[in-house]
Amino acid sequence: MKLYYSPGACSLGIHVILEEIGRPFEAVRSPIKEGALQTPEFQALNPKGKVPTLVRDDGSVLTQFTAIAFWLGAANPGAGLLPADPEGQARALEIVDFATGSIHMQGFSRLFNQARFAPSEADHPKVKEQGAALAAKGFADVDRMWKGGDWALPSGYSVADAALFFVEFWAVKRMGMSLPPRLQAHFERMLARPAVQRALATEGLA
Amino acid sequence: MKLYYSPGACSLGIHVILEEIGRPFEAVRSPIKEGALQTPEFQALNPKGKVPTLVRDDGSVLTQFTAIAFWLGAANPGAGLLPADPEGQARALEIVDFATGSIHMQGFSRLFNQARFAPSEADHPKVKEQGAALAAKGFADVDRMWKGGDWALPSGYSVADAALFFVEFWAVKRMGMSLPPRLQAHFERMLARPAVQRALATEGLA
Repeated sequence: MKLYYSPGACSLGIHVILEEIGRPFEAVRSPIKEGALQTPEFQALNPKGKVPTLVRDDGSVLTQFTAIAFWLGAANPGAGLLPADPEGQARALEIVDFATGSIHMQGFSRLFNQARFAPSEADHPKVKEQGAALAAKGFADVDRMWKGGDWALPSGYSVADAALFFVEFWAVKRMGMSLPPRLQAHFERMLARPAVQRALATEGLA
Repeated sequence: MKLYYSPGACSLGIHVILEEIGRPFEAVRSPIKEGALQTPEFQALNPKGKVPTLVRDDGSVLTQFTAIAFWLGAANPGAGLLPADPEGQARALEIVDFATGSIHMQGFSRLFNQARFAPSEADHPKVKEQGAALAAKGFADVDRMWKGGDWALPSGYSVADAALFFVEFWAVKRMGMSLPPRLQAHFERMLARPAVQRALATEGLA
């Protein structure tokens, strides 16, 4: 199995899941900023030009964070990263989708790349402010709707925690934001996991 | 079961799924533009202030399009709207996530509300252009990565088709865009389904 990742991008969440599963995989460094997702080779794999992109043992390609996280959890039941019941799976997807689709794409995307939102440079501080507010609101919503204990789901550690981890990582380590206390504690619990430490080390973020 | 929807919003996709399942449900009209998602009553249900929001028979609330689509499919196996195997489920999620997270939120969001992206009004035509390009690129990617026949998945009609439907509907009916021939045919096939016609009629879009 091959994971195409860009160091410190959202693919970090999938990287953590693969390390938790513990089966051998190849992590293929594909830095967004160096144009690695626009090469003909990468475009042939995933014309959407995005990481995470997963090439499985049979050569088939799976894209989209939510789909990859679900599949890795469901196809590796021994790792215990995804509940077996539809209710638990839906609750996992609810968090993964919100972390990736809202906190990342509505919040952090504005913090990382204002030009994608506002053509005029004079507006960039406003876009940044809006991104910070959307990310903070997203974390507050996760906190308010928390159904788990130490981990996001009441059934225990899951792919949902790995999805929350990459946005928590961006908040604390890249933006110096403070998280609601429950999420700060969750982030620290994640950092203590050997699988998380291995993923960070491979990506040069340790 | 209660579906909170805003007429013609992405909740239309979930509305279609509920009509396909055919069990009784209440469709609660909650127009975004009239502030229906900002009322204290709605915020108590879903602090994220978004549709679709589903209140289930036991009173529990499920949010996020992807999670709701998955749960409705998985909890109603008789309706045959979600493959039973992890591979088929992941392929369904791959399409649902791309339709909602990319084609909708990156593409159509820019076409519908430029001010959310660029504070300066002078930039709004550029934002609109960018949204049209992102939506068109999204449809082209779906077309290029198509694995099904008449329907998006090789196993047949599924929640993935309902997710594609609402973005196809926006493209054709709201924006007058043209779709790749395969997606135009898919859209017409969707319009011919009684469940789709019922959802459109309820939302006042027929």
